[in-house]
Amino acid sequence: MKAYHFTEVPAEPVEGCPGVSIRWAIGQNMGAPHFILRVIDLQPGASTEHHQHPWEHEVFVLEGEGRVRYAEGELSIGPGSCVYVEPGERHQFTNSGSSVLRIICVIPRP
Amino acid sequence: MKAYHFTEVPAEPVEGCPGVSIRWAIGQNMGAPHFILRVIDLQPGASTEHHQHPWEHEVFVLEGEGRVRYAEGELSIGPGSCVYVEPGERHQFTNSGSSVLRIICVIPRP
Repeated sequence: MKAYHFTEVPAEPVEGCPGVSIRWAIGQNMGAPHFILRVIDLQPGASTEHHQHPWEHEVFVLEGEGRVRYAEGELSIGPGSCVYVEPGERHQFTNSGSSVLRIICVIPRP
Repeated sequence: MKAYHFTEVPAEPVEGCPGVSIRWAIGQNMGAPHFILRVIDLQPGASTEHHQHPWEHEVFVLEGEGRVRYAEGELSIGPGSCVYVEPGERHQFTNSGSSVLRIICVIPRP
């Protein structure tokens, strides 16, 4: 067992996404076999890539306000929102608020 | 894509654990193929079972104060704590504070 504060894991910039950083909070660092829990921070106005990939996302919003863009439009998110992004689904997260948008985003281990 | 507040998912009592409830927030309800994101609430003084199982836990503490018991002792947890419980490791979460201890706990899909 290991317990630590997520801020002990360094935040890394996300290439191509100014104002977005990621912490690989629980994953390879623990030898976790199946999935990886990341904490992603988006500064006001920042967005993740508008992209798609063969793996799913399970997202829980910790703080802030934002939008998720997908094929059928946009959805609003805030603290306590859950977002399920299906494998292969195009998506983009944007911070539409005035403070950080912080989300947990779990992915399968590659 | 689906987005919803976690409180839209009903909280179910956890058998054998008074004061503990669980929401299966993102998982079978979304057809998620690999892992399940649960939100677990422990009322003050409540504990999860002291047990072990062949699958891992990836835990992120949303609010409250608590302790995790494991083979080598106990660890303190609070908002922003990450806990990695290895497959097969005996563990127990306890709310040692005066308000709800709310955690995200991700497990592989059975």
